[in-house]
Amino acid sequence: MGESVVEAELDELCINTIRMLAVDAVEKAHSGHPGMPMGAAAVAYVLWTRFLRHNPSDPQWPDRDRFILSAGHGSMLLYALLYLTGYNLPLEEIRNFRQWESLTPGHPEYGRTSGVETTTGPLGQGFATGVGMAIAAEYLARYFNRPGFDLFTHTIYGVVSDGDLMEGLSYEAASLAGHLRLGRMIYLYLDNKISIEGSTELTFTEDIKLRFEAQKWHVQKVDGYQLEAIARAIEEAKAEKDKPSLIIARTHIAYGSPHKQDTADAHGAPLGKEEVRLVKERFRWPQDVEFHVPEPVLREFRAAKEKGETLEAEWNSVFQGYSREYPEMAQSWERMMKCSFSHVWDDAVSEFLPEDGPVATRQASGVFLSSIAPRVFPLIGGSADLGPSVKTYVPELGEFHEDRGGRNIHFGVREHVMAAICNGLALSNLIPYGGTFLVFSDYMRPAIRLAAMMGLHVIYVFTHDSIGVGEDGPTHQPIEQLAALRAIPNLTVIRPADANETVHAWKTALENTAGPTALILSRQGLPVIDRKNYAHASGLTRGGYILADPGEGDPEIILIGTGSELHLAIGAHEQLKMEGIRSRVVSLPSWEIFNGQSKEYRDRVLPPHIKARLAIEAGSPQGWRGFVGLEGGVISMESFGHSAPAKVLFEKFGFSVENILVKARGLLGR
Amino acid sequence: MGESVVEAELDELCINTIRMLAVDAVEKAHSGHPGMPMGAAAVAYVLWTRFLRHNPSDPQWPDRDRFILSAGHGSMLLYALLYLTGYNLPLEEIRNFRQWESLTPGHPEYGRTSGVETTTGPLGQGFATGVGMAIAAEYLARYFNRPGFDLFTHTIYGVVSDGDLMEGLSYEAASLAGHLRLGRMIYLYLDNKISIEGSTELTFTEDIKLRFEAQKWHVQKVDGYQLEAIARAIEEAKAEKDKPSLIIARTHIAYGSPHKQDTADAHGAPLGKEEVRLVKERFRWPQDVEFHVPEPVLREFRAAKEKGETLEAEWNSVFQGYSREYPEMAQSWERMMKCSFSHVWDDAVSEFLPEDGPVATRQASGVFLSSIAPRVFPLIGGSADLGPSVKTYVPELGEFHEDRGGRNIHFGVREHVMAAICNGLALSNLIPYGGTFLVFSDYMRPAIRLAAMMGLHVIYVFTHDSIGVGEDGPTHQPIEQLAALRAIPNLTVIRPADANETVHAWKTALENTAGPTALILSRQGLPVIDRKNYAHASGLTRGGYILADPGEGDPEIILIGTGSELHLAIGAHEQLKMEGIRSRVVSLPSWEIFNGQSKEYRDRVLPPHIKARLAIEAGSPQGWRGFVGLEGGVISMESFGHSAPAKVLFEKFGFSVENILVKARGLLGR
Repeated sequence: MGESVVEAELDELCINTIRMLAVDAVEKAHSGHPGMPMGAAAVAYVLWTRFLRHNPSDPQWPDRDRFILSAGHGSMLLYALLYLTGYNLPLEEIRNFRQWESLTPGHPEYGRTSGVETTTGPLGQGFATGVGMAIAAEYLARYFNRPGFDLFTHTIYGVVSDGDLMEGLSYEAASLAGHLRLGRMIYLYLDNKISIEGSTELTFTEDIKLRFEAQKWHVQKVDGYQLEAIARAIEEAKAEKDKPSLIIARTHIAYGSPHKQDTADAHGAPLGKEEVRLVKERFRWPQDVEFHVPEPVLREFRAAKEKGETLEAEWNSVFQGYSREYPEMAQSWERMMKCSFSHVWDDAVSEFLPEDGPVATRQASGVFLSSIAPRVFPLIGGSADLGPSVKTYVPELGEFHEDRGGRNIHFGVREHVMAAICNGLALSNLIPYGGTFLVFSDYMRPAIRLAAMMGLHVIYVFTHDSIGVGEDGPTHQPIEQLAALRAIPNLTVIRPADANETVHAWKTALENTAGPTALILSRQGLPVIDRKNYAHASGLTRGGYILADPGEGDPEIILIGTGSELHLAIGAHEQLKMEGIRSRVVSLPSWEIFNGQSKEYRDRVLPPHIKARLAIEAGSPQGWRGFVGLEGGVISMESFGHSAPAKVLFEKFGFSVENILVKARGLLGR
Repeated sequence: MGESVVEAELDELCINTIRMLAVDAVEKAHSGHPGMPMGAAAVAYVLWTRFLRHNPSDPQWPDRDRFILSAGHGSMLLYALLYLTGYNLPLEEIRNFRQWESLTPGHPEYGRTSGVETTTGPLGQGFATGVGMAIAAEYLARYFNRPGFDLFTHTIYGVVSDGDLMEGLSYEAASLAGHLRLGRMIYLYLDNKISIEGSTELTFTEDIKLRFEAQKWHVQKVDGYQLEAIARAIEEAKAEKDKPSLIIARTHIAYGSPHKQDTADAHGAPLGKEEVRLVKERFRWPQDVEFHVPEPVLREFRAAKEKGETLEAEWNSVFQGYSREYPEMAQSWERMMKCSFSHVWDDAVSEFLPEDGPVATRQASGVFLSSIAPRVFPLIGGSADLGPSVKTYVPELGEFHEDRGGRNIHFGVREHVMAAICNGLALSNLIPYGGTFLVFSDYMRPAIRLAAMMGLHVIYVFTHDSIGVGEDGPTHQPIEQLAALRAIPNLTVIRPADANETVHAWKTALENTAGPTALILSRQGLPVIDRKNYAHASGLTRGGYILADPGEGDPEIILIGTGSELHLAIGAHEQLKMEGIRSRVVSLPSWEIFNGQSKEYRDRVLPPHIKARLAIEAGSPQGWRGFVGLEGGVISMESFGHSAPAKVLFEKFGFSVENILVKARGLLGR
């Protein structure tokens, strides 16, 4: 009994250390969210010290359990745990919470802090990203594991809040996770009844248990301060292999704060000097020391280091045996870690030929994907219920919902979670792709933004890229989406003009491991540009290139096009030639890539002295002045579209060779 | 019995007429969605002929029941009903389905076709917009109804599909609707087990009944072809006043098509000539006539016209009595219909004074809103759980969740449904506002787009508008959001620079009844510009204006700023003045409004001959070349932000008077 009292005391001391580190850090930074870590410390303590299989000395150990703090505003909870268990996060960094270039930013940032598995903060995102990690865990286990060699056994843990569960994204994610029977997911929900505006009674009174049961989850309720009960619930959740698990832990925001516990005040502001004093009193914490960590606490937590090193050493020895037994699988492994599959796509598809007739770029995309995906096992993806339209379905890959080795994922009409799942897959060394109509990229933006911020290797297949959608009308015709995607830092947007540019666009996306790429593809058939008469499609890899020039002499005018409109520019160029006007045609499928070229190259393509420039793109004009200046012209969409056959729309909205000629002559003053 | 057989036959004939109009229209257009109308015709028939209180002769009758086709791809279902019941939609228009300028676009468009209550197509939107309509119905009833004068009694009906229910938006909407006990909502869910990629077994197997019960809905299940059972279910749903109702109607996509019923093929493509023949055979429909409408069918449906006229006449007579009894309420009514409240805001707030110290524009926004909202009863809104931060909460207005007359809505952490609800409120003659951090506008875009497309009078209050967010870091710092919003056609974006510009921004938003307005506001305090030395803040109403000019002579350089960065431009201007460099400062809070001014005015503000121009805005540079050309400069954000105090960030990212001076001198070659 004596021992268990001592244990209980040590537990309490450990939990209070997490709480007080959070309190002190927020106080020192004059900003942050103390309430969440104070409330959740016990739950997190049980999970981290009794269950989480991780190695603080190697945050990249492939079979580590993943821990996602979906309620990212409680970042100090995570930082405290990372510091205490011995990750590369010295106490100094916690003192430096929320400061310029510290390792402890306001919300957890993947890539900045070792042990942070994904960037969180925008609510619902962590919850949904975990579903992608759980899919990856199942797929990788199925792909790599062999009898006696269980390389992948890990669990995805998450801590989620009321805010996460209110976001539509979390319902999409839960619906799919339950449908897919993702048994490796265990989420702890902090049921603290408080959000920023006050009690959840104001706005969030649904029955969470019933809701998740309706979505085929295993659900338990537990007191968030009964350590043994929490542990039993996690045990039970682990035992349930066929369903994702939600553990509803009743907690109290700002637990232990005499005036702020259970109040919204404790959510997003420091407790204040006097209240900190009272909390320290309550927890019998030294008043005059900040960032106090009792020696036995540190020892207790730091046991994780040795434990983790042992775990990984065991795993390494399994992996060594595996490498001997299955050398070809070990090679696959290497390939995946380095993303070295260029040999596959470098000679994937023979060129598309003009004489074979028009090809929609979505079609070319499908042909390319089908040709390489079977040989690139980390490629995995699907569409938000538009497979037949966006051409992302590859029959040879099987179906994930039937077989964990299948790589076609049916996301359902859930664009947002598709994007978030792609993030989780990419964070697990896979190369995910997700397809929908370009206009519905709007549903995905918060997750796309995170992919860009984290620098994830994700590929979006956005088809039906303009008024070329036709009869479905303005709700389905993207106008502002191209501009809106181009505005996202570190997202590469590519809108190829024909089948061969599409192949190069895909290859570029596959090689771009430093961030997501959006492929913007046509619904309608487009002629295959005759590369005998025009420059080679590999020019796409420079973002923009000279497609055609006048036979001789400097161009008088430059016509710039992307996607389907490039063909109109070519038509106008040929017509101008007959009129004796010297024009250049520039294909500019990717602004980001082109702007990344040397000034010398860019000036060669768009010589500064040629002011007569005309851009043609069936989307918002926003940003085009960056290429044509104030003196040039832009043929673009200034309004939403209309329902009518695509051909009619192009004509009516001024996307015709005729109109280009009129505008071009105007720019030249003829 | 004979009569009921005859009735049953007529019912069948009516239902088949709806089906065959859809089949023929899609076939003729060579595009569209025949399966949904074929499957849903019976359900819709019962609703429209036995329940819907509407007046085809006056689609604007204020107390009409609303019918929302959330599954907008089934537009022909709605067009058939509108034509048959006698709306201003001649058969000719149905023949013209999906053609240029027809009244029958691919998806239902508000404002184009009489009787279409809201634009639908992007899934989930109709479902969520209806929640806004239901809130409006409750509020208007509470505001206007008086004993003996029930002006508002209407019900919101919707037809929703699997796709609607998969979108996260529908869960957010259902959660809030259930929480708010919106008893005036009755949605019919077409449980047809098919989506585009195939059976819903692929991806959507949650328990819908349980899900909606968890969200506090009244749920029934019914066979979608048993007319009496459908009718009983609707009766029961109407009787349930305290909960929204979902009627799960088991239906079959492409009902009656021998080869396509219950297949995904029937979703988005014409049945094809031979299949149409077989369907007509099955329904004993004439083979050689297209768009066949049996005479008794038309007579049966058209009864709606007389019935509707009678209903409205009765209502009108109630309204006349009401006007006599409550003339001041009748005047309120008039005001609402004309949105004539300028007298309130014209002298709402006394000017903010520089000597009173810095004011965050979010704060100024809150002051203005609080000062006018109590006197403008159609103003209604709130925030997505950020009231204390975005300053949208007005204590005097009460709370809608407690009292149907309350106008503060707690949307919860549900940005997307906030935007969709705003659409429903605006479609009900109210003036909604919704607030959140600018970065989370990403969650709302699909609904914002619809507001812009429909030309709805919605006001978004987007605060924390730049890296000025500070410590919360890159997940919370908007970069691309300003550009992405500006790219949306018909959305007016205004980023005021100080408290007084904020007042004018609000007034502009309140007067802009032709489309939504986004107010972009600072977290941090900003100096109140001393208008004795600089131009008056009313210049904002022209989108951009000359704030400061050199004492004498033509400016050599123009500094253009918005929001918090305008103050840096002013600082630089003063400094340049001391250096003997003549600069102009232009405040450019709204591109859309400025671009709508005469060329003469625009050229006065930005004279074409002055090429040295420098724009300063802490957001994406995209679009700024449209004002500064290729020869000017832009100080902007080229990456995501960082977690650190705001002041540090502004400095580090080059938003300082110093950096402006360096860049300005560079542009002038000094």
